[in-house]
Amino acid sequence: MDDLAAPPLHVSRWFNGDASLSLEILLGRPVFLHAFQMLCPGCVQHAVPQSQKVAEAFARSDLAVVGLHTVFEHHAVMGPEALEVYLHENRIRYPVGVDAYRDGDPARHPLPLTMAAYAMRGTPTLILIDRKGRLRVQHFGGVDDLRLGAEIATLLAEPA
Amino acid sequence: MDDLAAPPLHVSRWFNGDASLSLEILLGRPVFLHAFQMLCPGCVQHAVPQSQKVAEAFARSDLAVVGLHTVFEHHAVMGPEALEVYLHENRIRYPVGVDAYRDGDPARHPLPLTMAAYAMRGTPTLILIDRKGRLRVQHFGGVDDLRLGAEIATLLAEPA
Amino acid sequence: MDDLAAPPLHVSRWFNGDASLSLEILLGRPVFLHAFQMLCPGCVQHAVPQSQKVAEAFARSDLAVVGLHTVFEHHAVMGPEALEVYLHENRIRYPVGVDAYRDGDPARHPLPLTMAAYAMRGTPTLILIDRKGRLRVQHFGGVDDLRLGAEIATLLAEPA
Amino acid sequence: MDDLAAPPLHVSRWFNGDASLSLEILLGRPVFLHAFQMLCPGCVQHAVPQSQKVAEAFARSDLAVVGLHTVFEHHAVMGPEALEVYLHENRIRYPVGVDAYRDGDPARHPLPLTMAAYAMRGTPTLILIDRKGRLRVQHFGGVDDLRLGAEIATLLAEPA
Repeated sequence: MDDLAAPPLHVSRWFNGDASLSLEILLGRPVFLHAFQMLCPGCVQHAVPQSQKVAEAFARSDLAVVGLHTVFEHHAVMGPEALEVYLHENRIRYPVGVDAYRDGDPARHPLPLTMAAYAMRGTPTLILIDRKGRLRVQHFGGVDDLRLGAEIATLLAEPA
Repeated sequence: MDDLAAPPLHVSRWFNGDASLSLEILLGRPVFLHAFQMLCPGCVQHAVPQSQKVAEAFARSDLAVVGLHTVFEHHAVMGPEALEVYLHENRIRYPVGVDAYRDGDPARHPLPLTMAAYAMRGTPTLILIDRKGRLRVQHFGGVDDLRLGAEIATLLAEPA
Repeated sequence: MDDLAAPPLHVSRWFNGDASLSLEILLGRPVFLHAFQMLCPGCVQHAVPQSQKVAEAFARSDLAVVGLHTVFEHHAVMGPEALEVYLHENRIRYPVGVDAYRDGDPARHPLPLTMAAYAMRGTPTLILIDRKGRLRVQHFGGVDDLRLGAEIATLLAEPA
Repeated sequence: MDDLAAPPLHVSRWFNGDASLSLEILLGRPVFLHAFQMLCPGCVQHAVPQSQKVAEAFARSDLAVVGLHTVFEHHAVMGPEALEVYLHENRIRYPVGVDAYRDGDPARHPLPLTMAAYAMRGTPTLILIDRKGRLRVQHFGGVDDLRLGAEIATLLAEPA
């Protein structure tokens, strides 16, 4: 297996999870990480509902589902207070982190750190990390339910 | 015909339209008015895309399509700056008004004025106003495309 | 109005209706006529379910809904016995006619008579006939619910 | 593993495959077997299109996709000639077998043999058989793409 270790998450604030959440803590379980922006139409209409479906379809003890708010534009109107309302209105219960900015300053460094570390091309981006913390799948844009289900199960089938 | 005149719109700011826009100016054409909040899931996933479909299906000279941002909760994160981004990201080109608050003060008067005047029960709400300015149809929640198409055409068929 | 009178229906057998059914009898009401073949995928997956939706959305006293089985290929396996099962399994309750063949002989004259009279290009074909029996709309292939609803309502709005 | 061996297929005729096709020949690959009737609405509108999607999503060398025409009612109008037209019109390219009847006589034995051997409750039924020929999953009615993708991948992940 030549896949690289998934870069660590740089999160300035977690919703639905405590501050210590990290990929290290999740080792042993595959991780479904979905990066989104709350005002990105493709995220709101497709990727977030699909992620919620993933969260319902697999037990938390089998698969970790984590959201990442990777705001790279229009920062002023997609801050943590707005995200909190978005998560509440959409009844999202799994942990969602706010991707952090260099020096905590999106005005000077608009591309958030985790988004840069994964070389994401935009939102939505869907990522699968295996039990050993290796980055295995990264999709920019939409992916079909049938294929996503298969990709998740492939990682679930691997030994711990 | 016993329908009442549609209450006037109380708008503090128009996007994609000039400040003089009003129901009076639109007299002569049926009006499809859709009230929404930019963080209401049913609006974002169903009613707004449907309204955009209406805007594409009928000529502007036949049917006026107007959005109304009726924010009655979480005002801080659904202000005009956030709405502007939402409209841009979703490529909404028809006029959208910000429903106004009594004394311009949503903290003291959270229910906006037009929403109150129409006795809307929440968002999304879809409204049809006829050529003569009478309120003819008001739906809270979703309505099927087939039925909505028929309701619009019924008003279009009426003489000017 | 320059539209021509809709050609009469040539039906060898009616299901869910009696033998006297004709466009003449339906004068006074708009008619939604949908031509299909029971083994045409676009019919089975889209046009027939849409027609059933139309039948549910409008009162029979307002709009006549009529199906027409226009078999122009594979006649042996789409005969009236097979159609009867299809209508039963799909719970289609409105009248459906079997489009007739010249000399009652599809082997020699495979294109059925009504299909030829309307110059249909294939299946599915959706047709709207107004209260006065004039052919007003003819779609080959799919049409959107919003547009179809509007087209039906336009005919409903015309005086008897 | 306590799963039982999948019962053999009793097929009177294969389309898109030769007469020697059997579960034994497919050992080594997981098998996705979908049982349907060509005039069952749930099959035609959901299960068959989903099966075609499965056939496109996975390589034939990884997963065997097999259809089974399990006609237990209306035998006269769902015979092999009608099925052949159905497969052609729907562009189904993977092997589809006609489930056989005891004494080749559906009039006396209407429930076909494979359907009985699997104790299927109706159509559509979706079945997954693992590399070793064991029956692992059997769904009556619809199943979600996400779950189906996961179930298939679980079997794919098992060693040969």
